[in-house]
Amino acid sequence: MKILFIGDIVGNLGLKAVSEYLPYLKDKNQFDFIIANAENSAPNGRGITKQAVSVLTNIGVNTLTMGNHTWDHDDIYEIIDKKNYNIIRPANYPTALPGRSYITVKLGNKNVTVINLCGQTFMDSFNCPFAAIDDLLAKIPKDHYIIVDFHAEATSEKIAMGRYLAGKVSAVFGTHTHVQTSDAQLIKEHTGYITDVGMTGCRSGVIGMEAEAVLKRFRLKIPVKINVDSNSSSWQFSAVIIELAKGSTSAREIKSIYEVS
Amino acid sequence: MKILFIGDIVGNLGLKAVSEYLPYLKDKNQFDFIIANAENSAPNGRGITKQAVSVLTNIGVNTLTMGNHTWDHDDIYEIIDKKNYNIIRPANYPTALPGRSYITVKLGNKNVTVINLCGQTFMDSFNCPFAAIDDLLAKIPKDHYIIVDFHAEATSEKIAMGRYLAGKVSAVFGTHTHVQTSDAQLIKEHTGYITDVGMTGCRSGVIGMEAEAVLKRFRLKIPVKINVDSNSSSWQFSAVIIELAKGSTSAREIKSIYEVS
Amino acid sequence: MKILFIGDIVGNLGLKAVSEYLPYLKDKNQFDFIIANAENSAPNGRGITKQAVSVLTNIGVNTLTMGNHTWDHDDIYEIIDKKNYNIIRPANYPTALPGRSYITVKLGNKNVTVINLCGQTFMDSFNCPFAAIDDLLAKIPKDHYIIVDFHAEATSEKIAMGRYLAGKVSAVFGTHTHVQTSDAQLIKEHTGYITDVGMTGCRSGVIGMEAEAVLKRFRLKIPVKINVDSNSSSWQFSAVIIELAKGSTSAREIKSIYEVS
Amino acid sequence: MKILFIGDIVGNLGLKAVSEYLPYLKDKNQFDFIIANAENSAPNGRGITKQAVSVLTNIGVNTLTMGNHTWDHDDIYEIIDKKNYNIIRPANYPTALPGRSYITVKLGNKNVTVINLCGQTFMDSFNCPFAAIDDLLAKIPKDHYIIVDFHAEATSEKIAMGRYLAGKVSAVFGTHTHVQTSDAQLIKEHTGYITDVGMTGCRSGVIGMEAEAVLKRFRLKIPVKINVDSNSSSWQFSAVIIELAKGSTSAREIKSIYEVS
Ligand SMILES: [Fe+2]
Ligand SMILES: [Fe+2]
Ligand SMILES: [Fe+2]
Ligand SMILES: [Fe+2]
Ligand SMILES: [Fe+2]
Ligand SMILES: [Fe+2]
Ligand SMILES: [Fe+2]
Ligand SMILES: [Fe+2]
Repeated sequence: MKILFIGDIVGNLGLKAVSEYLPYLKDKNQFDFIIANAENSAPNGRGITKQAVSVLTNIGVNTLTMGNHTWDHDDIYEIIDKKNYNIIRPANYPTALPGRSYITVKLGNKNVTVINLCGQTFMDSFNCPFAAIDDLLAKIPKDHYIIVDFHAEATSEKIAMGRYLAGKVSAVFGTHTHVQTSDAQLIKEHTGYITDVGMTGCRSGVIGMEAEAVLKRFRLKIPVKINVDSNSSSWQFSAVIIELAKGSTSAREIKSIYEVS
Repeated sequence: MKILFIGDIVGNLGLKAVSEYLPYLKDKNQFDFIIANAENSAPNGRGITKQAVSVLTNIGVNTLTMGNHTWDHDDIYEIIDKKNYNIIRPANYPTALPGRSYITVKLGNKNVTVINLCGQTFMDSFNCPFAAIDDLLAKIPKDHYIIVDFHAEATSEKIAMGRYLAGKVSAVFGTHTHVQTSDAQLIKEHTGYITDVGMTGCRSGVIGMEAEAVLKRFRLKIPVKINVDSNSSSWQFSAVIIELAKGSTSAREIKSIYEVS
Repeated sequence: MKILFIGDIVGNLGLKAVSEYLPYLKDKNQFDFIIANAENSAPNGRGITKQAVSVLTNIGVNTLTMGNHTWDHDDIYEIIDKKNYNIIRPANYPTALPGRSYITVKLGNKNVTVINLCGQTFMDSFNCPFAAIDDLLAKIPKDHYIIVDFHAEATSEKIAMGRYLAGKVSAVFGTHTHVQTSDAQLIKEHTGYITDVGMTGCRSGVIGMEAEAVLKRFRLKIPVKINVDSNSSSWQFSAVIIELAKGSTSAREIKSIYEVS
Repeated sequence: MKILFIGDIVGNLGLKAVSEYLPYLKDKNQFDFIIANAENSAPNGRGITKQAVSVLTNIGVNTLTMGNHTWDHDDIYEIIDKKNYNIIRPANYPTALPGRSYITVKLGNKNVTVINLCGQTFMDSFNCPFAAIDDLLAKIPKDHYIIVDFHAEATSEKIAMGRYLAGKVSAVFGTHTHVQTSDAQLIKEHTGYITDVGMTGCRSGVIGMEAEAVLKRFRLKIPVKINVDSNSSSWQFSAVIIELAKGSTSAREIKSIYEVS
């Protein structure tokens, strides 16, 4: 089974990158399942909109994961619990909030379960993701292919999660920093891992946003309105492809993709 | 001119990685200058020791940069100002502390200036690195090859620094997260850039440290003594090679190296 | 019913302050119950020791609360679950850790329940204290006098907790900042509240620790060993006295005490 | 010489508190100089407006200090450098920003110099306030009465600054937490000190803002628009009065004021 996971899609240029590059990738690969982190897919990079869901779903993305920007755009409240939209949000957000934190999809006689979690270090105040994953793994049948999107900042927390889940899940994909790392690997010859899948969106800005505004904030420490970078039409597409074993839940191969238009 | 920059060397296994792999690399490349980030080169991964300096110098590293762990081992106070040890420390540490924040080395009729800076976001309380680099660039002659080690956590701050210095320096190499990123590139066809060069040390732990102890701290939130991982003899070597233009200060090519024993 | 709550006791001078001042206070007041935050009562200010428990228990303190320093001294593992030591630790630490997060003591025909919670803002990565208190309040009978030690940094989080629990508990006492606030009050004419009870220990240092070492760390940003201040024999004693209504669980009066030797 | 320092004024109710209570206070005291922290005096609590300056100036406030909200309202750029408006902003903001970080006012044959500084701990990324005050004190004549508004979060950093400046300045007044502390004191029998002067504004909210919105954000970790609390007409007025010696720059007495309407 071959699964594609696309890293944080930022703004309209991110959607364009998916629209332009995914068909090409699909031509070259037979994907059984496609996941994308869509926490920045709204036009302003904050949250997700109905329109973004529509674009991504139509082009063949099966499940959308989120992160610390889940609730930034009000559309989320309309779409997060819709049965026909496979959107999940981090499991360690308060239970009082709507939305699923994992989703199971049947593919032939196999089940793929996708989980979304946020880190704690250098992030907002979330509950412990290690405790959260323990709870989820107690509920999910052991023969599922389990794919975890661990949306976190600190490399130490992400690698620690990779080591913690090695042998227990099929893959741990880091997201959130918007820069792809070069450490895609199999841990314990079982679990596909990468510290960060990277960002899909404008290449010329700063993690998808306008460089000039970001620089102004860093240099002057004053409030600056920061928009998605749309000065450029040049995008980057960041993803990983994971090949899962047929007879077991282990990953056999992981490969990162970092394509620039 | 060809320069090698080795990412955060952690503990004795990090030194061993350099000892084993650098000779091989030197065989294949003609390096004019070798820089290494040595803030974790002490046996316990915190700071630098005389012994580590000796190992690295003897094997051909020309200049050592540091970071937020500069002052963790007391040896630093003996070695930081020694003329024959080319150690520099982040420029945005207080001026009351000893040590140089940049160093200029003459290579033939060319000058290479290496600068060390710390980021502010998710880091200790440092002074503004953007203001610090402005001050330094006002002092350093414009015809120097200037190499900046920007020791920082947040991808946004590092990319912002890369964009800020594009065209003004020959290279901006990110360090500190201990995970190599896959975005080595030339910005504005002038400045070599990578968000993080990555870590040189034990491959099986968490950013060089024992995985079990790190996991205990993440899961239980209690004080845990965390040692350098020495359970394994398997190292990783992370670096970048940059090729600088002869007639100008611009970089012509940047290539990342991520080698596992 | 009259309850005394003593703020963070730091080191041996803190214990001395309690030993010298509590007898005097008891002479002037008829306390039904005495609580003290003992997270810094070890000689070095980090955690609690068997010896400190012994001193505090012998002098008449009934229940000891903790905070983010709960696990700093290894003695905690021996004493935290002892029936005859009424030590509680923050409820929003992982459940895998030992210790109770609340305790109920029968006083005549009344029950006093003491709860300990940590804040999230500017603190280590704890689970949500608002969710944790919801869970606890669902378990504790509504006719108990409930006293909450909310060990937190940010004034906004502490006042928010006070407002959240107003009418639901008898008192919310903030601890952790080591400086008493002057806002002791009844919220909704029911719940005794103070943002921080303040520190009991050495007066001349910085929140109980040696001023010179703390200043060195703030000025130089280098690692500095920081000891409990023992240069001075002058202590401060910080506490609140709360008077609870007989026929209900509401507080009738709250008064802060800030005494200097 | 008698000086009044009013703590963070929040929104229109904060201005109303000053308008109603300051005349009463002036009747009872002969103030030579009045300072107020106005970083939250805009109607929405973020920054300062021309209108707020006008209200405060007309009622007799002589100098306005700011903090981390200095640049939140665009009016600041018009008023910060006006000679007839005595507004100062933290000295450890970038020098590229407009505004003075200290101001000297001649009162008879005496000079009063007011300085504004921000802390680093748990704050935005500012330059070191200890280095900043060193620089300023080297410039300001030693016979000035120097009053420092240290706008900071952590009690340790504030007390450390108080100890650092003891004997060097007439007063160090903490601001920013919006809750008055009960530790007003003279350090070394010279320097008036309080960890936080407290907030002037709506009493029923959370540090001046609507309690319900703040609670929603703390409980759900989602973006919530937080307004100044205007549900209530009940204000609090927080300030300190300091009496300075005639023949020297030392403080003779400090007294805190915490008045509720
Ligand atoms: Fe994110
Ligand atoms: Fe993102
Ligand atoms: Fe490092
Ligand atoms: Fe570092
Ligand atoms: Fe404490
Ligand atoms: Fe504490
Ligand atoms: Fe304020
Ligand atoms: Fe503030």
